[in-house]
Amino acid sequence: MALIGKLVVCGVGLIGGSFALALREKVDRITGIGRSKESLERARALGVIDDIAPDWASALDGADFVLLSMPVGQTDAIMEAMSPHLQSHTVVTDAGSTKHNVLYSIHSHLVGHLPRVVPAHPIAGTEKSGVQAASAMLFQGKRTVITPLPENDPAAVELVRNAWQACGASVVEMSPQDHDRVFAAVSHLPHLLSFGLVHELAGRANAELLFSHAASGFRDFTRIAASHPEMWRDICLANRQALLGELDQYLGELALIRSLLLSGNGPRLEQIFEEARQARAKWGEGQAVNGG
Amino acid sequence: MALIGKLVVCGVGLIGGSFALALREKVDRITGIGRSKESLERARALGVIDDIAPDWASALDGADFVLLSMPVGQTDAIMEAMSPHLQSHTVVTDAGSTKHNVLYSIHSHLVGHLPRVVPAHPIAGTEKSGVQAASAMLFQGKRTVITPLPENDPAAVELVRNAWQACGASVVEMSPQDHDRVFAAVSHLPHLLSFGLVHELAGRANAELLFSHAASGFRDFTRIAASHPEMWRDICLANRQALLGELDQYLGELALIRSLLLSGNGPRLEQIFEEARQARAKWGEGQAVNGG
Repeated sequence: MALIGKLVVCGVGLIGGSFALALREKVDRITGIGRSKESLERARALGVIDDIAPDWASALDGADFVLLSMPVGQTDAIMEAMSPHLQSHTVVTDAGSTKHNVLYSIHSHLVGHLPRVVPAHPIAGTEKSGVQAASAMLFQGKRTVITPLPENDPAAVELVRNAWQACGASVVEMSPQDHDRVFAAVSHLPHLLSFGLVHELAGRANAELLFSHAASGFRDFTRIAASHPEMWRDICLANRQALLGELDQYLGELALIRSLLLSGNGPRLEQIFEEARQARAKWGEGQAVNGG
Repeated sequence: MALIGKLVVCGVGLIGGSFALALREKVDRITGIGRSKESLERARALGVIDDIAPDWASALDGADFVLLSMPVGQTDAIMEAMSPHLQSHTVVTDAGSTKHNVLYSIHSHLVGHLPRVVPAHPIAGTEKSGVQAASAMLFQGKRTVITPLPENDPAAVELVRNAWQACGASVVEMSPQDHDRVFAAVSHLPHLLSFGLVHELAGRANAELLFSHAASGFRDFTRIAASHPEMWRDICLANRQALLGELDQYLGELALIRSLLLSGNGPRLEQIFEEARQARAKWGEGQAVNGG
């Protein structure tokens, strides 16, 4: 028996497309919906989805499971559009990188459906975007965070958990508050810092000279600066409060490092580098063990 | 005929060891010297060097070519120690990541030898360190920057150039001033930022929770935070002036981004991310073409 009868994916890009591909054999039928007809056509041509819904009434007709995987800034408008057409048995989840804005939209538009709306966030992705970058293996060995609502029906949480596990992900639960703080620190801030460095250098008169001498350290530090601008705009705005807190703590660290540079304090600089190196090396070993 | 008769490598770690391995077949004899007897013994056991010099008098006796590849903070003391024993035909070069401090030490201790001291900087490395990480292929397809002195004998510059080309590197020339500014921007600053992020997170009460959710973006952004602390302390101190200038320009960029976050200015944030993405993607394509 199929895990899901009719799966609806809203926003068939890297994440939505990879989810569809990973569940291909465990789902009866996959319907795509989204604002770009062109990318939906591409997804159908690639066999990622079976058909394209022209509107939410048609998409939600008989839908068993809906994954919202468009940029998080669209969540509110989309939940509002879905609301009148949602059938009582349909389980809804999302793949948004921030959670408190998703909660807000759920409470604004889907209050009648709380038992079956289960917010989630797959911790996977590359700097590439679009359905052409999708892969059935994207979530293999990765983690998906579920931030269940107190009102959730345990069976709906279980289905969302099973779907992500079927994609190869391990599933953990967190509160939406913890989620947003943790990912502001380990994901959103590094993206902001990397975008900022490349943007600052690219705007200089000698940018070409600078880039021509950049090597592997620069390459890795700035890989995430090639990420999807709209997606990251939405994440930064949605998680603004936690991100500003993280940025300010980091600016405090940079102020310390700046003062050590200014005073030529070699021993303290070396101590900071040594503590960072040890923490990073320890983390890297854990990753290797977990295959992450 | 061998490219070099007796090669002396001071500091047989990742860079010095890789240089020795790459030139193995083109050199008659390789002598190591350095402060750690243990790592010199390891280098000899691995076949990277043929013998270990107990002091500079013995190392420089009959030496044709000297590569200084210890952390740059030791340059001054080592040039002072070399000075009384340097034979007139010996060509000296270094692998330091900063150049104005090397120039300063050359003019302090090796003024009688200016025609044959050719400062250089191979743009290669990994976050790993030590001779056990050395590889004959490390410089293959990479770049070495030479910053010749006005007093240099063209034949000495040519020999340094040939040695690096024999390691597989392409060689470019720059002024020491340009060198230090360019690498402050594209290498030293990113290292500082990456060390700073990991250090700041590692010091928190919930560090373990944070690290447990870090994924591939964090992995790449922080790879260089596992770099050699002493080497990077020395680089930061030696290139302090240029690095402070770069840090301050970057802090200006972060102040801009912070104000856009604070005011929720989505369009301007997206524009910054888009410009960064385009510059990074263009750079990445150039790298792929150049195999860098």
